[in-house]
Amino acid sequence: MTHPIRVAIAGYGNLGRGVEAALKQNPDMRLVGVFSRRAPTSVTLLDTDVPVYAMADIEQYQDEVDVMILCGGSKTDLPEQGPYLAQFFNTVDSFDTHAKVNDHYAALAQSAQKSGHVAMLSGGWDPGLFSINRLYGEAILPEGKTYTFWGKGLSQGHSDAIRRIAGVQSAAQYTLPIEAAITRVRSGEQPELTTREKHTRECYVVLKAGVDEETVRHTIVTMPDYFADYDTKVHFIDQASFDKDHSTMPHGGFVIRSGVTGDNNKQTIEYGLTLDSNPEFTSSVLVAYARAVHRLALSGEVGAKTVFDIAPSLLSAKSPAQLREELL
Amino acid sequence: MTHPIRVAIAGYGNLGRGVEAALKQNPDMRLVGVFSRRAPTSVTLLDTDVPVYAMADIEQYQDEVDVMILCGGSKTDLPEQGPYLAQFFNTVDSFDTHAKVNDHYAALAQSAQKSGHVAMLSGGWDPGLFSINRLYGEAILPEGKTYTFWGKGLSQGHSDAIRRIAGVQSAAQYTLPIEAAITRVRSGEQPELTTREKHTRECYVVLKAGVDEETVRHTIVTMPDYFADYDTKVHFIDQASFDKDHSTMPHGGFVIRSGVTGDNNKQTIEYGLTLDSNPEFTSSVLVAYARAVHRLALSGEVGAKTVFDIAPSLLSAKSPAQLREELL
Repeated sequence: MTHPIRVAIAGYGNLGRGVEAALKQNPDMRLVGVFSRRAPTSVTLLDTDVPVYAMADIEQYQDEVDVMILCGGSKTDLPEQGPYLAQFFNTVDSFDTHAKVNDHYAALAQSAQKSGHVAMLSGGWDPGLFSINRLYGEAILPEGKTYTFWGKGLSQGHSDAIRRIAGVQSAAQYTLPIEAAITRVRSGEQPELTTREKHTRECYVVLKAGVDEETVRHTIVTMPDYFADYDTKVHFIDQASFDKDHSTMPHGGFVIRSGVTGDNNKQTIEYGLTLDSNPEFTSSVLVAYARAVHRLALSGEVGAKTVFDIAPSLLSAKSPAQLREELL
Repeated sequence: MTHPIRVAIAGYGNLGRGVEAALKQNPDMRLVGVFSRRAPTSVTLLDTDVPVYAMADIEQYQDEVDVMILCGGSKTDLPEQGPYLAQFFNTVDSFDTHAKVNDHYAALAQSAQKSGHVAMLSGGWDPGLFSINRLYGEAILPEGKTYTFWGKGLSQGHSDAIRRIAGVQSAAQYTLPIEAAITRVRSGEQPELTTREKHTRECYVVLKAGVDEETVRHTIVTMPDYFADYDTKVHFIDQASFDKDHSTMPHGGFVIRSGVTGDNNKQTIEYGLTLDSNPEFTSSVLVAYARAVHRLALSGEVGAKTVFDIAPSLLSAKSPAQLREELL
């Protein structure tokens, strides 16, 4: 093996911790540093003995890092950090605001083209692995429909929305796919499904003392965009139960392509994830793509890339001949 | 749209017919001819109005075809036709003898490198889409196990083996995955499974008059390699029932990657196919890869390629910006 790929983490929350853990499963890669906006001395890593640096000093380390994995949020961190860091590093991020993907792509492309780096956006599973499966599905079965179901899984954005309601102390919101809808899709029927027919939402809420349950319940289930279009169940529980049962971050879902070929033969492709830890899985995807980004950069590629642009073999530590031998 | 990609078919059996049907679903591609070893006048196409040519004349058409899809068998046709045709054409095949993949790759690479073409081998679903999912699975979850289950599906090779037994008139053999095994794998248990624990085999057999059922049954269930390692059920039926119930070619299966991340969080990736028509689906995959092969050739690539080497975006008729907008 040549020297390990030197990876650094920009932003150390759940996703950053996941990257730290994932790198340990990949002996051809090595974590060389973590960058945080918090005071470096206040950041405690899981168990890797590498330095924590101030985000403000990150430019100084451009010769010591092969790939920078950006672990900030899509709303404010990545749109700013992405183009900035692509001036100095090959980067991978998990930008997941679907509606703004082409803007983020353009900003990264401009920065990375100019600096001669590779900047990969929207790694992870949706966008990411689910996107790949949507693409393969419709390319292979052009006459058909694609369905994406999410869950059962904790939705961070919806949990946050509940926590912002006055009187709420803790909240966890789970998105659940509706089994009947999945069954219809799997049958090859190609149904038109409304938002309400695809998913339900289930909320576990801890209230502050003296707060009225019915008022909070009504505020939740009528909240536009987040809950109004869904059948939503709200369970009020105490903090001890919440801490015991709702502290993990499971997620998952399905992408199903239902198509027909020839003389109306039904063909179904289904891709599913069942994840105990959403951030750890997302991080594992980012780490595999960091390997690919490093290889693309070594081969002289520059600019912005998505999962669509990256050949599968680039993700694996194995040689092409070994891949053909073992996995083809 | 620029002019359509000109595709031809070499070998016109079930797979060739599937390619003919699939091309009709892809308006950016056009079937320009079919090559057969049979007398061209004896070959009747489904419903496309294109010429059928003698395979012996195929070299003459090298300037009229962008991609040649090879629809022969892996045992004798493709090892010979592949390297031969890569002298003259960009090619796509569905070579599926796992154990000989690197030999076939080397022969194609040599021929295609010399002639300046792209020769893609082992398109289809296994090898092909299943292979990609085995690769993504282990690259993303390095600590885990990968399981491939096939079926329920008609196995051509096993049906042929039964038909070669003296006294057998017709035979269809179905491979069935064992539900209990799949359930264990999905649970994240990562079991070690024997051949017998993963699949059963079910045979529908029509005997010639006066042939003894028990003799044939014994010959089947004890046949080495094909049946001896499996629990095999044999049903004797009449020709009318056989024609009615066993004339389609369904297939499918699953690739499941069961892994752990971080502090023993179980993560499961599952890819599944449920196919009414195995040959039509395989053909649909070959056609999508023909588009990719054409693009690779246009961009100056030469040599042998597998599904591992081909970025997802190359399979789709949509532009990269459209893919990001609609599918990412």
